[in-house]
Amino acid sequence: TLQHIFKEIFKASLELQEDDHSKALLVSRKKHPDNTIIDLNNVPVGNGTQQLIAGPCSVENEEQVDAVAKAIKEQGIPFLRGGAFKPRTSPYDFQGLGIEGLEILRRVADRHDLTVISEIVNPADLEKAVEYLDVVQIGARNMQNFELLKAAGDIKTPVLLKRGLSATIQEFMNAAEYVLAKGNDQVMLCERGIRTYEKATRNTLDISAVPILKQETHLPVWVDVTHSTGRRDLLLPAAKAALAIGADGVMTEVHPDPAVALSDSAQQMDIPQFNEFMEALRTSGYLQDVRV
Amino acid sequence: TLQHIFKEIFKASLELQEDDHSKALLVSRKKHPDNTIIDLNNVPVGNGTQQLIAGPCSVENEEQVDAVAKAIKEQGIPFLRGGAFKPRTSPYDFQGLGIEGLEILRRVADRHDLTVISEIVNPADLEKAVEYLDVVQIGARNMQNFELLKAAGDIKTPVLLKRGLSATIQEFMNAAEYVLAKGNDQVMLCERGIRTYEKATRNTLDISAVPILKQETHLPVWVDVTHSTGRRDLLLPAAKAALAIGADGVMTEVHPDPAVALSDSAQQMDIPQFNEFMEALRTSGYLQDVRV
Amino acid sequence: TLQHIFKEIFKASLELQEDDHSKALLVSRKKHPDNTIIDLNNVPVGNGTQQLIAGPCSVENEEQVDAVAKAIKEQGIPFLRGGAFKPRTSPYDFQGLGIEGLEILRRVADRHDLTVISEIVNPADLEKAVEYLDVVQIGARNMQNFELLKAAGDIKTPVLLKRGLSATIQEFMNAAEYVLAKGNDQVMLCERGIRTYEKATRNTLDISAVPILKQETHLPVWVDVTHSTGRRDLLLPAAKAALAIGADGVMTEVHPDPAVALSDSAQQMDIPQFNEFMEALRTSGYLQDVRV
Amino acid sequence: TLQHIFKEIFKASLELQEDDHSKALLVSRKKHPDNTIIDLNNVPVGNGTQQLIAGPCSVENEEQVDAVAKAIKEQGIPFLRGGAFKPRTSPYDFQGLGIEGLEILRRVADRHDLTVISEIVNPADLEKAVEYLDVVQIGARNMQNFELLKAAGDIKTPVLLKRGLSATIQEFMNAAEYVLAKGNDQVMLCERGIRTYEKATRNTLDISAVPILKQETHLPVWVDVTHSTGRRDLLLPAAKAALAIGADGVMTEVHPDPAVALSDSAQQMDIPQFNEFMEALRTSGYLQDVRV
Repeated sequence: TLQHIFKEIFKASLELQEDDHSKALLVSRKKHPDNTIIDLNNVPVGNGTQQLIAGPCSVENEEQVDAVAKAIKEQGIPFLRGGAFKPRTSPYDFQGLGIEGLEILRRVADRHDLTVISEIVNPADLEKAVEYLDVVQIGARNMQNFELLKAAGDIKTPVLLKRGLSATIQEFMNAAEYVLAKGNDQVMLCERGIRTYEKATRNTLDISAVPILKQETHLPVWVDVTHSTGRRDLLLPAAKAALAIGADGVMTEVHPDPAVALSDSAQQMDIPQFNEFMEALRTSGYLQDVRV
Repeated sequence: TLQHIFKEIFKASLELQEDDHSKALLVSRKKHPDNTIIDLNNVPVGNGTQQLIAGPCSVENEEQVDAVAKAIKEQGIPFLRGGAFKPRTSPYDFQGLGIEGLEILRRVADRHDLTVISEIVNPADLEKAVEYLDVVQIGARNMQNFELLKAAGDIKTPVLLKRGLSATIQEFMNAAEYVLAKGNDQVMLCERGIRTYEKATRNTLDISAVPILKQETHLPVWVDVTHSTGRRDLLLPAAKAALAIGADGVMTEVHPDPAVALSDSAQQMDIPQFNEFMEALRTSGYLQDVRV
Repeated sequence: TLQHIFKEIFKASLELQEDDHSKALLVSRKKHPDNTIIDLNNVPVGNGTQQLIAGPCSVENEEQVDAVAKAIKEQGIPFLRGGAFKPRTSPYDFQGLGIEGLEILRRVADRHDLTVISEIVNPADLEKAVEYLDVVQIGARNMQNFELLKAAGDIKTPVLLKRGLSATIQEFMNAAEYVLAKGNDQVMLCERGIRTYEKATRNTLDISAVPILKQETHLPVWVDVTHSTGRRDLLLPAAKAALAIGADGVMTEVHPDPAVALSDSAQQMDIPQFNEFMEALRTSGYLQDVRV
Repeated sequence: TLQHIFKEIFKASLELQEDDHSKALLVSRKKHPDNTIIDLNNVPVGNGTQQLIAGPCSVENEEQVDAVAKAIKEQGIPFLRGGAFKPRTSPYDFQGLGIEGLEILRRVADRHDLTVISEIVNPADLEKAVEYLDVVQIGARNMQNFELLKAAGDIKTPVLLKRGLSATIQEFMNAAEYVLAKGNDQVMLCERGIRTYEKATRNTLDISAVPILKQETHLPVWVDVTHSTGRRDLLLPAAKAALAIGADGVMTEVHPDPAVALSDSAQQMDIPQFNEFMEALRTSGYLQDVRV
C-alpha cells in the first residue's frame, strides 16, 4: 500500500505536467478566456449574434450558384458556401469543378456582395485557393489530415474545420490546435454529426458538443444541419436546437433543383423550401438579427 | 434482367404487405393522426405545452424527497420522479428502497399535490406499484424486457418508456407497440441518450430522435437531460435544445445534497442549482406556461 | 502542487478501496484463479476441450427439432439449443411456443441423449423452466434485466448469459456477478456481437472480448457465430477465429428448412450446410475432440 | 398497388444499373476472380501463405531500428515496418523523423535484406518516398484523404491501405478503388480495428471484415493486431484469430525498449516478448511457412 501511494505520487506529478500541457493548448479557453470573434467582411462571427451559411452542396455551374446566392442574399444571409473540390466515397462520383468552381463562387459572391466559403482538400491547392476564398473549409474526412491542417496554419485566411465522422471532442480540439500552432488563429469549428449505430439519420447530431466546445475553447462553433441529419424534414428542428443550445451559426444546403443535383440530392432544400425554412426559423423566435 | 424484374415484382408485393403491417402499428401517426394527450391529474402532456419532471435519482428517505418536492412545487412543476427500484450495473450498488420507496413517494406527492412517477423493473411488482404511482417508468435497460412491456400493457396507469442504450428509433417504437398492443394506450416516450464512442458525455443525446418520434408516432416525447449528458454543466443547454426542437417535456434530477447521493452524485443538481436552472430556462424564453 | 499531491494521496486510497472491491467480485479470476468447469451431463465445459451448441433459432414443432437433434447427434455434438420464449422486436412477430416448446425440447433431447439449453425471459417462468432445461439462457436483451439475473441466481441450473447488444465487458462481468452473488456459480458467458456503425454484419463480433473474459474471469466463454455475424457465409470463418482465440465453445443455429423458419431465416444453416460446416471445421484442424 | 408495382419496376432497373456499376469496381472479385498476389522482393503476399510484418511504431534512430530488424530477421520475417511520418492527435507529440527516418529504414533494410514499409501522409512526399520504400502505407486517418489515394495511384510501388477508424467495409473498398482507378493495382488492405463504444481495447478488431474483404475483393488482407487491440496481452490471441480466419498476414509492433518509445509505448512488444510471441504462434500451429 505504501508502495502504491508512492506510485500515485509519481503519477500525480506526471498528471500535473499533462495538465500544464493542456493549459498550454492555444484553442483552450484557459489560455484565451475571451471569445475569438472572426470578422468576415465586416460581419462578426462568435460575438453572440447567430449567423447562417447556405449554398449548394456542389458548385455545378454559374447559373445554379447565382440562383442560390440571390435567394440567400434576399434572406439577409451574408455567407455563401459551395463545394468545388468534393471528397467523394467513390472515385466514379462527381469530384467537383476544382479551381473553376472557385472562380464561379468568387464571381457570384462579388456580384451579390457575399462572403464565400469552400472546402480545400490538398495542401498544394491552398495557396491558389485563398485568392478566391474568404473562408477555407476543412471537411470531416480531412479532420485528421494533419498535412492539410499544417498548411492551413500557414495561411492568413480564416478556416472552418469540421468534426471528423468519429472524432472525439478532444481530437477535434487537437486538430484545430494544429492550425493555431502554425500561426493562423482565425479558426471556426463545425459540428456535423457523428457516426453511430442509428441509421434513421445520416449521422447523429451530437448537439451536446456545442456547449462543450464553447466552454472548452474560445472559437466560434457552427452546426451543419444538413450533413448531421441528412434529411430535409429535420433541417428546421435541428436548426432550432442548434440556435437554442448556443451555436454561433447554422450551415445548411440549398440547391435550385435538388432532384438533379450532382451530390446530396436527398437532403438539400430548393429555394421555396429554403424561404419557408427561414420564415419558420424567424417566427419561431430562435433566430434574430440576421436580415440586414 | 427479365428474371430480375419478376423478382422485383415479387419483392414489391412483399414490401406492400410489410408497409401495411407498418401502417397497422398502433403507435404510428398513420394509424392515429392526432396527438395522444395524456391527462396526469388534470395536467395534459402532449398538447403543445411543454412540461418538466424533476426529482432525485433514488428515493433515499422521506426528508430528502420532501425537500425536493417542495422545491419543484415552488417552481410550478407538477411532476415528481424518484427511483425506488434501481437497476444498477453492480449487484453491490444501492438497489433502492423498493415498495418502501414507493410509499414515501406517494406520501410526499400527496402532501404537495404532485403527480408521481417511478421505475418498475419486475412484471410481478406492477400490480402493487400502481397503487402508489401515477406514471410507471420503464427504464432504458428494460426497453426490450418484453415481459415487462406486456405486463405494462395490462395496467391502466400511464407508462413512460425510455429508449434503450443502443436501441434504434424503430426498435423504440416497436417496444412501445408492445404496451399499446396489450391495451394500454397511455404511453409516453423518453429520449435519454444513446451509447456511442464519444465519452465527453455519459451518453450522446440524440436530439434528432425527438422530431422523428413526433413525426412517426402520436405519443408525447420527453427528453431526459440528466442521463443523456451525465454532466450538471450541460443540463441547461440540453434542456433549451430539447424544448426548441419540440419535446413535450424535459426530465431532470434534483437532490438536496448530490455529494452524498446514493446514486448518480455527479450529475444531479442541488436545490439552489435547480432554482437557477429554472430561472435561466424561463429568462431564455424557451420555457413557457409551467409556473401556475 | 503540494495540495494536489495530497489530493492524489486521498484519491489513491480511494482507488485502493475500489481495487479491493473489484478483487471481491466473485466472477474475478483474482478471487478464483482456477477455471470454473461446468459439468453438463458428464460433458465438461471450460476444461480446455472446445465444444459446440447447435439447434434451431425457434422451436416450431417436434419434427423440426427432432431432425436437427438427429443431425447434431450424428456430428457428435452433445448440446441442443432451441428458442421457446422468443424476445422479438415487434409484438406481431412469432413469440415462441412457450412451455410447450420446452416440453418438445425435453422430449427430443431425451430421445437423442442430448443436453438442452433454452432462453427464459420472465423471472416467474424460471421455476417451471428448470424442470425441462439443463441450461437456462439469458439473452442479450435481458443482460441487464437484473430481476431475471437475481432469479437465475436462486436456481441450481447452469446459466448461459449472453452479452448485451451494447454492453461493455465490465458491465457483462457485473451482470454475471448478479447471478453468482445470489448463489448460483454455474455461469457461462457468451459473446454474440456488439452493435456498431458497421452494417455489413448484423452485429460486430468482438473477438477480443474472448481472451479478455478468459483473463478477467474464471467462467467458460462461448461465441455465438450466428447472431454476431448474421450471415450464413461467415459462420465457418467466425467459428475458426473463435476456436483459435480460445473460446470454450461455439454456438450456431441449424434449421431443417431455414427458408420457412419462423425467425432468423437468413442466418441459419440447413442440415447439409451444417454437415459441411462441421466437416470444414474438422479438416481445418481448429476443432478437436468433439465427435465421440 | 399497380402504381406501386410500376414504381418498383423502375426501381429495379435503377438497381440493375447500380449493380453494373458495382460489378465494374476494379477491386471487386466479380471483375477479377483470381487473388491478386503481390511480389515483395520475391516473397509473394496473397497466395495463401500467411506472412508477418513487424517493426517499431516510430523510427527513432538507426540503432533502434537495427535491433528490431535483426530480431525479425532471426524469426524469418521478411517485412520491416517503421513510422517516419507520424500522424499524431496532438501537434505537440513526436511527429516522426520524416525523410531521415526513411533513409534509416532503407539502410537497415538493405543491411538485413528486408522489405521495408512505411506510412506517407502528404501527396507531395510520395515521389521522393518511393526511392526508399518497397511498400507505401496509407494510414487509417488518411483512408479518405482522396488526394493522397489518387497520388498513390500514380506510383508503381505497392500500397498497404489501412481501414479508417469508422469506415464501413464498403467505404474501405471504395478507398482502394481510388488507387486502382489511377493505375496502381498493387494494393493490400489492412483491418486495424474500428471505433466503438467498448473501451477495454483501443479499438474493436472487426475480425469478420477479413472474410468479407477476401470474398468481395481479390486483394490481400492484413490484420494489424497492435492498433486494433492496443494491448500487448492481446497480441497473441488476436494474431491466432487473424490467421485462423484467413488473413494473408499479421502486422505487429516491436521496439527494443517500449517504455521509452516516442509513441505507443503501452502496446509494443520488446524483443524477448516478440520472440515468445513468435514461438507461441508457431507452436499453436496457426502459423506456418514463415521461417526460411
